[in-house]
Amino acid sequence: MKRHEVFAVAQLGPIHLADSRARTVNRLIDMLREAHGRGATWVTFPELALTTFFPRYIYDTPEEYDVFFEEGLPSPAMVPLFDAARDLGVGFYLGYAEKVQQDGRTRRFNSSVLVGPNGDILGKYRKIHLPGTAEPIGDLEFEHLEKRYFEVGDLGFPTFATPSGRFGMCICNDRRWPETFRVMALRGAEVFMLGYNTPTRNIHHHEPAYLREFHHRLSLESAAYQNGAWVMGAAKCGAEDGFAMIGGSMIVAPTGEVVARAASEDDEVITHNCDLDMGAYIRRSVFDFARHRRIEHYGPITQQTGVEIPE
Amino acid sequence: MKRHEVFAVAQLGPIHLADSRARTVNRLIDMLREAHGRGATWVTFPELALTTFFPRYIYDTPEEYDVFFEEGLPSPAMVPLFDAARDLGVGFYLGYAEKVQQDGRTRRFNSSVLVGPNGDILGKYRKIHLPGTAEPIGDLEFEHLEKRYFEVGDLGFPTFATPSGRFGMCICNDRRWPETFRVMALRGAEVFMLGYNTPTRNIHHHEPAYLREFHHRLSLESAAYQNGAWVMGAAKCGAEDGFAMIGGSMIVAPTGEVVARAASEDDEVITHNCDLDMGAYIRRSVFDFARHRRIEHYGPITQQTGVEIPE
Repeated sequence: MKRHEVFAVAQLGPIHLADSRARTVNRLIDMLREAHGRGATWVTFPELALTTFFPRYIYDTPEEYDVFFEEGLPSPAMVPLFDAARDLGVGFYLGYAEKVQQDGRTRRFNSSVLVGPNGDILGKYRKIHLPGTAEPIGDLEFEHLEKRYFEVGDLGFPTFATPSGRFGMCICNDRRWPETFRVMALRGAEVFMLGYNTPTRNIHHHEPAYLREFHHRLSLESAAYQNGAWVMGAAKCGAEDGFAMIGGSMIVAPTGEVVARAASEDDEVITHNCDLDMGAYIRRSVFDFARHRRIEHYGPITQQTGVEIPE
Repeated sequence: MKRHEVFAVAQLGPIHLADSRARTVNRLIDMLREAHGRGATWVTFPELALTTFFPRYIYDTPEEYDVFFEEGLPSPAMVPLFDAARDLGVGFYLGYAEKVQQDGRTRRFNSSVLVGPNGDILGKYRKIHLPGTAEPIGDLEFEHLEKRYFEVGDLGFPTFATPSGRFGMCICNDRRWPETFRVMALRGAEVFMLGYNTPTRNIHHHEPAYLREFHHRLSLESAAYQNGAWVMGAAKCGAEDGFAMIGGSMIVAPTGEVVARAASEDDEVITHNCDLDMGAYIRRSVFDFARHRRIEHYGPITQQTGVEIPE
């Protein structure tokens, strides 16, 4: 018996500094309704889906940047989206900037939440692989200051039991690290949900622009294949106040094949009727972890952070 | 200052059961000379490059299958290749079936050796991720009995200092496991050398034939990109006594881009003038392991072999 279910990825076009939260949430709700109308029971929204990608700007005090953060879950701005999803019976992944009182202090994370089709909050993820820098590089048309505004996530890579199987969540730069997906797969994830904001230009070094999309796609294809899992990748893209980001939202099958792909750099819903058992044959044969993995030879992966040249 | 150096991959067409070692070694030497004539200082040959891919056949006693194994390094059959390479000043990777007296008993491994341009043996690797089964599946046109004829490698994933930088070696099915390349990269490898024999048909389950080449390519592209390293992949391919194997030998740049690719399923040399510093910018930015890896969240990768569903 096959477990077929329609999944949607809701790509967001630009959100400008001047755009209100209410306007943005209405765009999300419009796409939620479209996804539902096309039969979807799950929607993946992008990273930091409620505001512009603010880590490109330099702010010095919390008073300046707290405007981009959400408090509470749902935060006041999220309530209409949570209500609409519960009314439609659609589950979703949503990326947002999280401000929370924890350990007796104010903490800020680049987070995502997984909400079930019945409206239950199934869990949170806090981004672990923060790219960029804490201090501005300067002399650039934009910065990438995630290490300035966010702490490294403290929840690991959890997985979540849902009515449609076990899901895992990650965010943007996490996708370039095979460790991300392997940990989730070892914890039973069959679907990886991922939002991202990826500037079209790599500020760290010169490289051909086409490599940005290629590296994104390569990361998702290999994550899917090497773990026999579905990948849902949702971009925020296009030019936000003139700063361009790649699109390329996609759904990747457990064979590593891209089965749905956004063709715009604007709001766009893509869907696929996913066979949730498709990865099972891969996990029973080539990627039967229990039979083939050789952890006695993997030690350096968890014993050392950087390169160490042997004697 | 750029470190440019020409690397060659020498793909082998079929070796039939009736072919002599001497004939096969002459084919390797012919390709070695061609590679040298095209400016190469390093050649990567395939896995089990001296015989047919014998794990497809069922043998019951060492008397039957020891004919496929080499003893000594160089083994008698390898001597003309070692001599020719040293005379030309070309280093190489060669895959072979290794029979050795070790720990007071006869042991057999699916091995590769790295020989420097001056003829020095720089080191060995013994295949860790053995695919297939120990007992025949039966009811197939061919088997895949690597677990029957070989022990799991006992040398880990070593890396080797060479006049051209630090190299790592792996074999065939190792390439499907990102752990393989990550361990070598954490030990400083800038070039991954890899030989393989990959049947065109997946005997474990039905899948479209084109996925075999796609999964091979995806594995090599992602290994290169995620580690900022060069990948040299050498196939033995074509139909050996009627049993078809994929070609697709390739050189992949540290950007994940295929820069040279074999177009035949026969003996064929491909080369590329590799910028050995090309990966450096990747390892200084996106994949600066020391700055970005978060080993405190990678525990399951080395703590558990198979999937474990959390409570």
